[in-house]
This record gives sequence, structure tokens and C-alpha cells, in this order.
Amino acid sequence: MNEFELIRHFFTRQSLQRADVIVGIGDDAAVLEVAADQQLVTSTDTLNAGIHFPLDTEASAIGHKCLAVNLSDLAAMGATPAWFTLNLSLPQVDLVWIDAFCHGMFALAGAYGVQLVGGDTTRGPLAITVTVHGLVPRGQALLRRGAHVGDLVYVTGQLGDAGLGLLQHVGTLQLPEAEGAQVLRRLHLPTPRVREGQALRGMASACIDVSDGLAADMGHVLAASGVGARLDLACIPLSPTYRRCLPQLGWEGALTHGDDYELCFTLPVAQQGALQQVAARFSCGFTRIGEIEAQPGLRMMDETGKEFHARAAGYDHFRVSE
Amino acid sequence: MNEFELIRHFFTRQSLQRADVIVGIGDDAAVLEVAADQQLVTSTDTLNAGIHFPLDTEASAIGHKCLAVNLSDLAAMGATPAWFTLNLSLPQVDLVWIDAFCHGMFALAGAYGVQLVGGDTTRGPLAITVTVHGLVPRGQALLRRGAHVGDLVYVTGQLGDAGLGLLQHVGTLQLPEAEGAQVLRRLHLPTPRVREGQALRGMASACIDVSDGLAADMGHVLAASGVGARLDLACIPLSPTYRRCLPQLGWEGALTHGDDYELCFTLPVAQQGALQQVAARFSCGFTRIGEIEAQPGLRMMDETGKEFHARAAGYDHFRVSE
Repeated sequence: MNEFELIRHFFTRQSLQRADVIVGIGDDAAVLEVAADQQLVTSTDTLNAGIHFPLDTEASAIGHKCLAVNLSDLAAMGATPAWFTLNLSLPQVDLVWIDAFCHGMFALAGAYGVQLVGGDTTRGPLAITVTVHGLVPRGQALLRRGAHVGDLVYVTGQLGDAGLGLLQHVGTLQLPEAEGAQVLRRLHLPTPRVREGQALRGMASACIDVSDGLAADMGHVLAASGVGARLDLACIPLSPTYRRCLPQLGWEGALTHGDDYELCFTLPVAQQGALQQVAARFSCGFTRIGEIEAQPGLRMMDETGKEFHARAAGYDHFRVSE
Repeated sequence: MNEFELIRHFFTRQSLQRADVIVGIGDDAAVLEVAADQQLVTSTDTLNAGIHFPLDTEASAIGHKCLAVNLSDLAAMGATPAWFTLNLSLPQVDLVWIDAFCHGMFALAGAYGVQLVGGDTTRGPLAITVTVHGLVPRGQALLRRGAHVGDLVYVTGQLGDAGLGLLQHVGTLQLPEAEGAQVLRRLHLPTPRVREGQALRGMASACIDVSDGLAADMGHVLAASGVGARLDLACIPLSPTYRRCLPQLGWEGALTHGDDYELCFTLPVAQQGALQQVAARFSCGFTRIGEIEAQPGLRMMDETGKEFHARAAGYDHFRVSE
């Protein structure tokens, strides 16, 4: 057995065994069963060391995050996660690292009932690609293109703490211990809003996950739907930590940094009552932040009526790496 | 539009539009329709520059090969290709390179009716991950674990020329022009045996594609099936070029180098007549090379009755990079 075959053994250790996995790891391909009333939903994301996560990120956090960012895409579709594949490029074989990586990945996978069914382990610069497969009842996937004029804009949870986490990780920011640990958790161990996304099926008119920052991701919804929006910055949900940092750091972290993996969605006014019932089942909170308008473009207004524009050039606290 | 958004536009240029792609590129995930009598078959492979292909490989060949090696895995399952996703890490944005890469990839995709439905473009060392999705009638996937004692062992096409192609590419070998071009095609532009694999459904008892070399890949079939095999080296199908190089280069290229992407399969004796009828439909040839035996292990015997053992250490003509 060579060292890469040894690594592959780590990936067969997941305790979860789904009944719809006919053939899993160990053949040329996986064979999977899709129920007749379901559609397949698939997404893929790559994380490169030093670009998508700092080089000194803990292995278990990398294992968590590479799956979490993909589950977040399924969440934005309202899909139920089922299976995933993993492509891992490693500069050298470090079994302690692999063990920790698998621990982080399989803990999250178990929490969402998603099974590893294949992959590829290669020698190369540290990089991880995960491809996730989920299921959604036929015709019920949440898309980016369904927002209509008059719909309300909502976001789950709080925005910006992942950006604070990056500043804390690189030492630009030095928060008190408990707050520092909390923003680092938001950076390294994001929670995909999978169950929240499923609960929004049949209710939200459009949905996206906030991976590139609210401004950019909201822009994708507006472009796909052919509408515009006005957001009230005063309504953007921030943690007490971020609110305290706001005078110093400004809105960039909450609006343009990304990495928060909250859901941003639009809701027909008639669905507000239904959303309240759904919101009561979840602890993350669902906050109304604006409204869809006919005028194209995204307008983000502060309490004084001044419009926020992301810094296109010049110094940006949150631009640590590209 | 930033440069990575520009790149993504290249990936929306595929003319093929399958009816079972409900949502393709441009949302958080693709939404796909799996017919009720079909099972989903999925596989993924990563190619890293300088490891899985020489650094100076043409972009169109890289585009072809990253999809071909994945289609070959579907071929080994007897599956019909349907969709794929692409994760492309690029050290810099070179639109001429991207255009050629897409040309090679989409030409092959069109030939097999497989549609690009998503992906991720990131900054990083050149690396390509493709994940393919295929369909197979329920319960008819060809697996590695079905070989039985007495089954005959077959291989499609010819083995070893991809190895010659690598030697030609790096200059270790200097073949005459036409022969040199032919082995380079075998290295850079492999033909996945997709239709051959589909034709073997209900006939072959086990199947694998020869990506790591016949010895290693046959070993996977034997381990999965709990059997052994004896192969006759005299029967291994070689090109005239390889046969001429055989005294100089030995069997390593044909048996252990890999990268040929032929199918190796086992066949119950009673299916020989059916296979002859199938073989008549294809130009690649199906060659009987041995037999499954109860004694574990793989025995490869030359005409003199001497057993071939792959060089585990020491000089290997075909070990150009790892």
C-alpha cells in the first residue's frame, strides 16, 4: 500500500451509510439512487491554501469549511444534502493533518446526513475541491431569478463577523478573548443555513448565500431577476462586537468581505406571516433589510440618507489576500 | 466585471443544451432531472500541472484530457455521460489559454453529449478538477467486484502508447514523425471508451479503466472480487510502434505506466459469442489477455513461462515525474 492508498483509508471511516448509496467509495464511480419525485441539485467549490484560507488554518477547520461552503450553496437552493465528493491535493503526506481534516469534515457531514461517496487524492499544492449533491422536490428549488418589485429583502443571522475573524487571525485586530474566539469561529467554522433554506421553499421568491459579501451577492439576485433594490444599512444585522468596531472599520466587512454564509432572500409581502412562523423555529434570526424596486441597481442607504459605495480601490481593512 | 467573471463567460459558450438541465451555470447550484428508471453515476479526478501532465502541455489538450479521464471512469461503469462541473485554478488570467482550453474541453463534451452545468474558477497553481455525472439503467452499472473464477479477461484497444507519448514529449524517445505524433495523441488526447462500456452492460462481469497501468488496475478488480488472474503477455495488444520498442523499453510502459484509458473487463465464457457481436461494432478491438483464477494475485507470464514483475525500485524508463 503506498502512502496515497493509506490516505484513502481515512476517507472510508465515515460512520454514516445512506440507503440511497448503491456503490460508494472504491469503484470507478459512485452509484446513487434519486427518488422519482426529486431533482438533483449539485454545486462545487475549491479552496486554495493561502487564498481561501490562511496557510496556518487548523486542519480540522479546513475540513469543516470546505464542506460548509458547499452545503451553503445547497442551502441557498432549498435542497437537502445527500452526497459529496472530495478532491484533495497535498504537498506531502501528513497523517496527523489528514486525521484532523477528516475529523472536521465528517463531524459536519454527520450533522447534515451527507455521505462521502468518492474523490481523488493527488500530490500538489494544498487545495481542496468539494462537490455536493442534494435533492429537492421537483420544481421547488429556490433560484436567484425570482425576485419581484415590492418583495422584501431578508438576511439570516448576522453579517461581518467572518471579516472580523480574518482581521483577528492575521493580528490586525485584537479583540478580547471571548469575542476574538467567536469571530474566529465565524471565519473558520461557518454554519451553513441548510434547514433554514429548506424551510424557505414555497415562500422565498429568490435566494442566494452570502459568500462574496452582501453587495456582490445581492447584485447577482438583482441581475438574474432584472430588478433593483434599496437596502437600509441601519437594518443590517450586526453582532455587538461588529457594532462596536463599526466607527473604526466601517461597513466593508459586513457588506463586501463575504465568508459569512448567511442566506439572503426575497419574500413576497403576502408571505410575511408564514415567515414569522418559520423564523420561530430557528435561533439565527431572519432580518428584513430592504425592498426590491423597479429601478435597476443596488442602493445601500445609511440613517442619514447617504449612499454607501464599496471602496473599489485604495486601502481596504478587509483585503488581506486575493 | 472582474477578470474571473470574464473567464466564467467562456464557460457559458457550450452549444449543447440538454433538456434534463433545469438550471445550469449561473445559480448557486445546478438543478438536474434524473429519469425514474435510471441511477446516477458520479466520479471526479484532479489533474495538477507538472504532475498529471507536463507543464508545457497545450491548453486544448489539457481541456480534452481533464474531461476524458473522467468520462473514462463513467465508461468503466457502463454509464451514459450527462453533466459535468469544472473547478479551474489559474495562476494568472490568460484569455488565449482559456479559449484553447475550452475549445478542447467542449469538443470532447459535444462528442459525448455531456453538458457543463457549474464550477468554480479560482486563483492558485494550475489545477483542474472535473466531476462527471452519468446515468445507468437501475442495477446495470458495471462494477469491479463481479469477476468470477473461469471468467476471461479482456482489454480494449492497445496499451502502452501513452507511456511512449510521455517519453516522446520529454525527449527520451525520438520516434519518426508520424509515429511520434500518434503516441503524443495517445498521451494528450485519450479516447474514453464510453460507447464500448455501455455495450458491455449485461455482459461483462467486472470492468475498470486502465488509468494507473494494467497491473495496478487489474489488481483492483481482483481485490474487489476476491479472486486472482493469469495474464499472457504475448496476448497484450500493442501498437506496431510499441512492439518495435519492446526489446529496448520492456513491458513497463504497457503494464504499469497507465494513462491509456482503455477498458479492462472480465467476461463469463458463455458471453463470448455476444461479445463478438458487440466487438464488430467498434474499431478499437477487444483482446482476450487472460483468465480469472481462484489463486489470489496477478500472474503475468511471458512466452517462455517467465513471470513479469514490475520494477518496484531502480531505473524505470517511464518514471518521468511522480
